[in-house]
Amino acid sequence: MMDTPNPADAMTLKLYGSRRSRAAIVRWYLEEKGIPYTLVELDVQAGEHRQAPFMGINPFAKMPALVDDSLTLTDGRPLPLFESGAILLHLAEQHANEFDWASSEGVVAHSLSVQWVLYANSTLAAAMFQAGSRAEDLERQLGVLNELLGAGGSLVTGRSEWGAADCAVQAYLAYLPIFCASVDLSPWPHVSATIEATLARPAYQRANGPA
Amino acid sequence: MMDTPNPADAMTLKLYGSRRSRAAIVRWYLEEKGIPYTLVELDVQAGEHRQAPFMGINPFAKMPALVDDSLTLTDGRPLPLFESGAILLHLAEQHANEFDWASSEGVVAHSLSVQWVLYANSTLAAAMFQAGSRAEDLERQLGVLNELLGAGGSLVTGRSEWGAADCAVQAYLAYLPIFCASVDLSPWPHVSATIEATLARPAYQRANGPA
Repeated sequence: MMDTPNPADAMTLKLYGSRRSRAAIVRWYLEEKGIPYTLVELDVQAGEHRQAPFMGINPFAKMPALVDDSLTLTDGRPLPLFESGAILLHLAEQHANEFDWASSEGVVAHSLSVQWVLYANSTLAAAMFQAGSRAEDLERQLGVLNELLGAGGSLVTGRSEWGAADCAVQAYLAYLPIFCASVDLSPWPHVSATIEATLARPAYQRANGPA
Repeated sequence: MMDTPNPADAMTLKLYGSRRSRAAIVRWYLEEKGIPYTLVELDVQAGEHRQAPFMGINPFAKMPALVDDSLTLTDGRPLPLFESGAILLHLAEQHANEFDWASSEGVVAHSLSVQWVLYANSTLAAAMFQAGSRAEDLERQLGVLNELLGAGGSLVTGRSEWGAADCAVQAYLAYLPIFCASVDLSPWPHVSATIEATLARPAYQRANGPA
């Protein structure tokens, strides 16, 4: 008996990114989960991100953005999405089936995953990239993360599987030695170990390599 | 025949906040949607946010945070959530029933709502509060928002109902005259009109008043 054809096989996910954009975070997730995708690299020097067709996908002209042609807008266009965190959660929900919506455990895991993605992209990112608050706020956050990461498993309480929440937080932590090189990580061994483990993952390396 | 008791009646949502914290954003959503909640105001001067029991709810000691006792963690504790954007999305999904998961329209509306909440809390917030990038990046974003808001309806394409996405973006825009007072809003009349309309909403006023 032949398998029923999977409609997802015909689906195309197009990820728009450029060198050094946060598209690498989304690409890491896609690579870890084995979700097929096409990477479209825009030439930022040539201003491709500020021209059609990309401005129709993300009017803010920022990368990453995703086009998911398994879903459509009310005007019939394939679904365009921007914001790396929103793309991660969309992939986790619609393509990696991270959450069992029928169970309250699945609902809780989902809300906690949203929390961690928001945390990474707003609170952690602000502490890393906002000059004024950097030192004190960032160090306080790293202290908390060090404790939580030391407990092992996913940041989503009660889960063992690596998911969107872990991807977002770990990807930002892996930026620390690059963008916050002056921060001494030695007081937080579990943060350092997480960064080392992230950099060693084959999917992370593929995501940060050429298309 | 008596109505079946609604388990939600017994449910308690506790919102932890303080004066001038982003708890007002979440409170605005709760007030607009008529969702019952209890507001717990922490005394930041006295350092209540850095002590138990709040550190058990949000180890990062930041507000807002929510405790939703209609759901539990694997260890049996009622679900604690932090990050204003994650709380908004949790309320939209679990308490305001914004999304019809059974339809692809509902799935699309959800992913677009996540996108706009992430946009408000990371990209817009960064442009407003990161000293370096402020002027140019913020003005570019306001130009795009002006166009989208001028089209009327929700920021979520194809929706008319006000929701979590609108709440997040409008709440940040309403911060503009306070935190970015030097920015001249006259080139963006739809942004100005949105701020005026937000400030005039009774639920917004209740959310920004005393408990």
